Amino acid sequence: MKSLKIPEATIIRLSVYSRYLHQLDKNGVTTVSSGQIAEGVNGSSAQVRKDLAYFGEFGTRGVGYNVLDLNQQIIKILGLTNRWNVVIIGAGNLGSALSQYKGFQERAFNVMAVFDNDITKIGLRIGGVPIYPISQLHDFVQKEKVQIGIVAVPATYAQEVVDVLVSAGIKGVLNFAPRVISVPDDIELRNVDLAVNLEILTYNMAMTKR
Amino acid sequence: MKSLKIPEATIIRLSVYSRYLHQLDKNGVTTVSSGQIAEGVNGSSAQVRKDLAYFGEFGTRGVGYNVLDLNQQIIKILGLTNRWNVVIIGAGNLGSALSQYKGFQERAFNVMAVFDNDITKIGLRIGGVPIYPISQLHDFVQKEKVQIGIVAVPATYAQEVVDVLVSAGIKGVLNFAPRVISVPDDIELRNVDLAVNLEILTYNMAMTKR
Repeated sequence: MKSLKIPEATIIRLSVYSRYLHQLDKNGVTTVSSGQIAEGVNGSSAQVRKDLAYFGEFGTRGVGYNVLDLNQQIIKILGLTNRWNVVIIGAGNLGSALSQYKGFQERAFNVMAVFDNDITKIGLRIGGVPIYPISQLHDFVQKEKVQIGIVAVPATYAQEVVDVLVSAGIKGVLNFAPRVISVPDDIELRNVDLAVNLEILTYNMAMTKR
Repeated sequence: MKSLKIPEATIIRLSVYSRYLHQLDKNGVTTVSSGQIAEGVNGSSAQVRKDLAYFGEFGTRGVGYNVLDLNQQIIKILGLTNRWNVVIIGAGNLGSALSQYKGFQERAFNVMAVFDNDITKIGLRIGGVPIYPISQLHDFVQKEKVQIGIVAVPATYAQEVVDVLVSAGIKGVLNFAPRVISVPDDIELRNVDLAVNLEILTYNMAMTKR
């Protein structure tokens, strides 16, 4: 595998291609062209070829890509060959939506528990996932070797929750709280800002009128 | 303004800078350096300077940027000088989370209504936003000149809902349903895939171990 720095936009598309390839494989399709992948994900075939070229030559000219092989390569690239243990903090609407999201379990993510402070929720399950009190977060992460914490609490509590995760040995944090969060250098942090997505949309909409 | 093609990663960061500048302005800060912006958003000052350079020279060497001016320039770039009318389709957990998200109203988005087929929800309000039946979606979009539809319905209904939006004259669609959606070329479509964000995180986590 080449060790080039791959643009994040490519990683995002690889993740989308991978899910499409998984769908093709389930439907019994064994070979696919870049054009067919492009069509399946609303992209361009030149873009698909460019993205896949980062990882060397998978395809055969005039034949296309082997669906299963290509998907296994992408899954390896994305770090999804082993499963990851995940907890969600916050059992509000967003945390509940994330707990019920089947896309996580289908990929390589074990969503093990949701943590919240609301005593009316503790002991219940969302989408099959149990809700535990936040006071148990530290010990659970440590004991269950949880690697990823998804933070879906109000902004004012986000740093506090992340500090607990970090002290318990978390490796990565996906933060949905609209607040700048600090983590030590060896912890991977990714912020998902829902408003940003809307603003990229309006940027593109405004661009087409310029 | 230069008409260069700006990388999406820059647009994403501009949106984040803008919210940080808004926060500084509210706190009475009038001048800021690229280093201070970088610190406020967990970025690097070189990156901040590079991102802002797309739009010409805003800052003054040795003094920094005028907080209000810089934010107004970014807001213009992001297409947020006028407000946008928005509807959300789907009053499940994700739609409810989006309706209550204060970040939308604070920026340039009027979230006018949520649409759902669940008769136990119709007539209620989520975060102050009324819930109407999907049968009224087409006429509402047309009458209220809604420009943006946020799709938070199960994957199987997503294309159907988008077709209604398109026929009613929508200009942009933010799709949260994990399904490839087709729209005419003159409609802006942005897909937000929650699993993708988790997979970028694991890609980065796997990379650091390679």
